[in-house]
Parts: sequence; C-alpha cells; structure tokens
Amino acid sequence: MRPIYILGVGQTPVSKESDLSIRQLAAAAVRAALADAGIERVDALYLGNMLSGILSQQQHLGALVADAAGLRGVEAATAEAACSSGAAAMRWGVMAIASGLHDVVVVAGVEKMTHTDRYATTRALATASDWDSEGAKGYNFVSLNAALMQEYIQRYRVNRSLFAPFAINAHKNALANPHALFHKEIDALIYEQSKMVHDPVRLYDASPICNGAAALVLAAGDAVGRAAAGRPAVRVIASAGATDSVGIADRRDRLTLDGVMFSSRRAYVQAEIGPADVDIFELHDAYTIMSVLSLEAAGFARPGEGLWLGLNGAIGLQGRLPISTMGGLKARGHPVGATGVYQLAELYLQLTGQAGPNQIPNARTAMAQNIGGTGATVLTHILRREE
Amino acid sequence: MRPIYILGVGQTPVSKESDLSIRQLAAAAVRAALADAGIERVDALYLGNMLSGILSQQQHLGALVADAAGLRGVEAATAEAACSSGAAAMRWGVMAIASGLHDVVVVAGVEKMTHTDRYATTRALATASDWDSEGAKGYNFVSLNAALMQEYIQRYRVNRSLFAPFAINAHKNALANPHALFHKEIDALIYEQSKMVHDPVRLYDASPICNGAAALVLAAGDAVGRAAAGRPAVRVIASAGATDSVGIADRRDRLTLDGVMFSSRRAYVQAEIGPADVDIFELHDAYTIMSVLSLEAAGFARPGEGLWLGLNGAIGLQGRLPISTMGGLKARGHPVGATGVYQLAELYLQLTGQAGPNQIPNARTAMAQNIGGTGATVLTHILRREE
Repeated sequence: MRPIYILGVGQTPVSKESDLSIRQLAAAAVRAALADAGIERVDALYLGNMLSGILSQQQHLGALVADAAGLRGVEAATAEAACSSGAAAMRWGVMAIASGLHDVVVVAGVEKMTHTDRYATTRALATASDWDSEGAKGYNFVSLNAALMQEYIQRYRVNRSLFAPFAINAHKNALANPHALFHKEIDALIYEQSKMVHDPVRLYDASPICNGAAALVLAAGDAVGRAAAGRPAVRVIASAGATDSVGIADRRDRLTLDGVMFSSRRAYVQAEIGPADVDIFELHDAYTIMSVLSLEAAGFARPGEGLWLGLNGAIGLQGRLPISTMGGLKARGHPVGATGVYQLAELYLQLTGQAGPNQIPNARTAMAQNIGGTGATVLTHILRREE
Repeated sequence: MRPIYILGVGQTPVSKESDLSIRQLAAAAVRAALADAGIERVDALYLGNMLSGILSQQQHLGALVADAAGLRGVEAATAEAACSSGAAAMRWGVMAIASGLHDVVVVAGVEKMTHTDRYATTRALATASDWDSEGAKGYNFVSLNAALMQEYIQRYRVNRSLFAPFAINAHKNALANPHALFHKEIDALIYEQSKMVHDPVRLYDASPICNGAAALVLAAGDAVGRAAAGRPAVRVIASAGATDSVGIADRRDRLTLDGVMFSSRRAYVQAEIGPADVDIFELHDAYTIMSVLSLEAAGFARPGEGLWLGLNGAIGLQGRLPISTMGGLKARGHPVGATGVYQLAELYLQLTGQAGPNQIPNARTAMAQNIGGTGATVLTHILRREE
C-alpha cells in the first residue's frame, strides 16, 4: 500500500446542546483539521454520518459539508455503517489515497442527536439493529447490550461490579480532554449507585447521546512535505474491515465478536504486528460489555478474562494497554457517526505528543477500533509514529 | 491506476410493488451478479442507498445485505450521495481495488420507495436538497426541476414541447428491457396531454418512484481469469466525482451544471478521451431538463443547444450519441440509491453484446453519469470493451 500519513486533526467539543446545524458542526471540524494540517485545498471529502437523514431531514451531507467548509467542487460523499460510520469514512479516505486517485483528502464524521426528543433518538439508533428481528420488536441498544452483559455474567459467573473500572477509567481520562462531554470523576460507589437503565446495564455502563464532529487530513507520503513542521510523522499502517450478522440471535456465539476478531487479525497482518505490539487501544466502549468483548476478540485477553484488564490496572494511562485515553465513547461521548474519527484524532494527538496530561510516554503503535451495532461492522486502523 | 474489470452484473426488475424487504431485494441482485460473474466469494461489498433509514427504519444495510447474500464476514458499508449513491458505491469499489487492498468486490445499489405513502416518500427525497433553504421551505425535486426548466425555456426562448423526444426515446428503449418499470410506448401527443405535475414539468418529464436493486462484480486485472468465459472484457477506464452547492440558489449559474462539467472533465482526462469518443452515454435523466443540462455541461452540446440532440435523433439507438438505451431513469425507473448501478449494469450488457434488440453495434466506449440532487454530486464512470 502507498504510504499514507495523517497531517492534522480537528475536533468540536462534544456536547448535549448545540446551536450549530449539522452542516456547520461538520464544517467547523473540517476547517479546524485543514488549519491544523496547514492545508487549504484537498481532493475529496469522505464524511461519516448515520442519523442526519432521520433526525435532521438532511441526506446528501457530503456535498453540503464540502461547500460549507469552503471546498465546493471537490468530490464528496457520505459513508454509513451505523456507529462505525466515522471509521468507514476513514477506510474510504485511505483507499482513495492508496489507489493513487487522490493525494490529499479530508475524512470527517459528524452527528447531531440531541435536538429531537429522546424517544425519536433511541428509535433512530435502533435502525442500526436488524430492524425486522430486533428494532421492530422493541429492542434497542441498551436492551441488546444488557442481554450480552447478562449472558457474560452468567457464563463466566462474575459480579457485575467488576465492569466498573472501565467506566471509572474513561471518566478519569476525560477530565483533561477539552473536547470531552463529561468532566466528572466517578468511583466504584458512584458507579454502583447509578441508575439501572436496563438490568444489568447501569447508567455508567452506557455511553451518552450527544453531538460532535471530528476531522483529519490524510495524504500520500509524497505530499507530506506540507505537514505541519516539527511534529513526528504519523503513518496509517493498517486499515481493515469485517462484518458479522446484524441480529445477535444469528451469531455463532453471542459472546464472541467474530467481526472484531476478523477485523483485528486483518489489521495485524497488514501492520505485521501482534496485539503485544499495540501501545494504545482506542476501543469501542459504547457499553462496558463491548469493551470487555472487544479486548477478548481482538486478542488482548482470553475469553472470559477481559474483565481482568480493568481490575489489574492494565487499561490505565500507566498500564500495559491504555484504552479510552481521552475519555472514550463513555466520557468523551459517542456522537455515533463522528466517533470513529474522534478516536483517530485522539491517537494522532497521542502519537505526536499533544495529549497533555493524558500523554502516553513513548507511544509508537496505536490501534483504533470502531463498531457498528453490537459487533456487526468492525473497522480497525493502526497508526504508527515514525522515528 | 491498477486495471479494473467488471466480471458480471445482476438486476431485479424495477417495480412499483415488491413483497421483498429491502435486504432481500439487494441480496437478490448481489446473488445474481455473483452468479453471472461465476464468483462465489468477494472481499467486500459496497452498497449505494439513500432512503432506507427514513422509509424502512433500517440503516447499517452494508452488513445486513452482505449476510443476506451469503457473504457474512466480508467488509461491507453503505455509500450515500442522494440519488448518486449507486455510483458512489461504485467509486468506493473502484478505489478498493485500485488501492490493492482488495482484488474482487461487489458493488450494489438498492432502494425501496413505494411501501409508505407518497407524501412521506416525496418528503424523504427532499432530504437530498439543501433542507434549510429548500426542503423545509416546501420545495421538492419536482418544483426545483420545474424552476430550472422554466428558466431554460425563458433564457433560450424554446417551446416546452421540445423536451418530448427525451421522454419518447426513454419509453421506446424500455420496451425491450425486461427489468424496466414501464413497457409503454409514448408519442408527442401523449406527452403533451400528460398531467402537468408542476408547471412546466409534465408527468412524462419526470422519473417515477419505484423499487429496485442492481449489482456488479469488480475485479483487478489479475483476477479476470475468473470472468465468465466467452465475453469481451469490460474495463473501468475512468472514475471521477465532483460537487456543487446543494441549494440551486447558491449556484454560479443555475443552468450550468458545474458538477457535471468538473466530473466529466476529470473522467475524460483519466480515460484520455473526449466527448466525441463516447459511443453511449447513460445520463441522469431524472427529469428531461436534467438530460439537457447534462448533455451541455458534459460537452456534448453548447449551452442552449442540448435540446437539438433530441430533435435531430442523435440520442436514439441509431443516433450519434445513444442515451437511456435501456429506458433510462425515465422508463427503466429511478429507485434512487440503485440507479447508478443499473446504469453501469446496462452499459456492461451493451459492451458485451447482451443488450438484445437495444444493442448498439460496435459500441466500445461508454459513459455513465449519476447525479445527486439537482447537480450537487456528480459521479462519472467510463467503461471500455477491450478487443
């Protein structure tokens, strides 16, 4: 694959309220990324979004955002893969450059979810499920994740309070992230006493409904001379996707995320590394159970042992495998179509030494994984800081 | 660019009614394309769709359709660019192979539009407009195209009956297409007497609301050994995209489709040809005015002279520049997210001598152009039959 680098990133603060329209939100992130990269013009824009057609009566966001960001005329389109739409846009951008058809592109993700009533938003999110067998029957992502968490607790005979470290870690790491939705430290007691949303999923097991946009500039190796001077070069060394059945009833084993397994393995092969070589893992912690299942399927823990990485401190900033280093979906927030791009933007900050108090020293190889549905679409990207 | 070939195609009949769910419709086209290509397994599925989230409560169609078509596990995602979503999926598929990341992929498009009430469908289609300045103010695509047609009639002082040949040609060519929605010949009198939908747009100036799915298999040159034996090889020699403002009020000149101009020029440069080398042009005849403006902006006629190609017979099967050779959007039908793939599938049939009574003899170079909105996203592909 032709060498591809990230030249700069832009993020809007994740929020529960926003005066900006969805196009303005996305355009703000795109302009910030262009400014960060020191680039004025790109060949194309690939935008991740899931819900704009349903919640904002606006499809066709690619062309609309390109124009609003001052890029009228460039190729532009939207990538959708439910909550992994952001990483799907990244995948498209990577292919656009790897193909030689483009040299510099901007990849963005945007979601606006709080301007309609909560019922409408929950119902819109359920369009990521297998509607015929799940959504139409009243299932939503809280109840689907509750089913998986319940099954995990029963099969491995674990106490549900063991999930707490994932929420505590995310909230702690979000404290120093100016773009995070929550700046509130929590402890085991607060976790235990939080509202039961859908047994056994408590409020702090779930990521919040919110708004946000993130963007990054990708360029071919020979265009890197334009990158902001003085920063280490960050190369995309793997980009891989995989799918599984959308409905969880159709899975081979509900507690084994085959999509995560295949997507991770394909990425490891491309990058010529194994899980032990990953210094940071921005995983898809939409629910604490998703974090645990992801750690297992991606090869960081054996089945039934993902919880231990939370308990023994491995996932902390000083641990063996830091996750959710800027707050994750849980505390930075999960504006669904934007999440995959936030993850990559945060890894870029980490790999270029711009992560402030959350900086992971000497991080060189970092992996981001963005999941659609309860594991049906999984996109994995691995970045490496070049010496 | 790495050589890329189409190995086979599949189409479902375009219809006003369908017992199939949207996933079943898409899966039927995908399976037909795989069978036609003699391929059982692909690396990825890229699916064009615009309206499923709004009209079928189902996003996340990529993974869902992959699974339904027997491709569980492959990478899959949805491309959206309003009515050009089908060609956007093609663009993604082309990049996937050109990048070297994949060798064989399936590109599909699907739309199901007739199962809700007509008002809901019209409103859903208006999400392809600039919602704030157009859709929310009551504009829909009929009224937007009526505004353009009215302006054309006034600026160039032409009679509106001069638009008839485009509708007549499309209906005539659809007669022999088993996948076409309409099998009904019309003449100038029927056109003139048809219902005025929104002055000056008559019923026969507009494409119909309908359901359909189409798919094709793309492969790298070195995978072509697997292609169905005995057919000429059909190579993708250009793939290009461009955008313009979504709202027509923001255009440089409302009667000059800059998106078409830029997209076509980029495609001509890649293919190293000019308009005179195009043997067939499957253009985006969602409205007769769109055909005329497209012919002008793509370089086949000077501004104000596009109508003459209809009047002098150039657009007919025996003409200098056959268009809508299997019925076009007007008469084959315009299931929006699928249209771009239908266009490419039809060109494949033409270039491999499978177009039956509509066969264009000796056609070697063929261009398909798929448009989102009233010219805001434009994707152009050029195919060539290899000797």
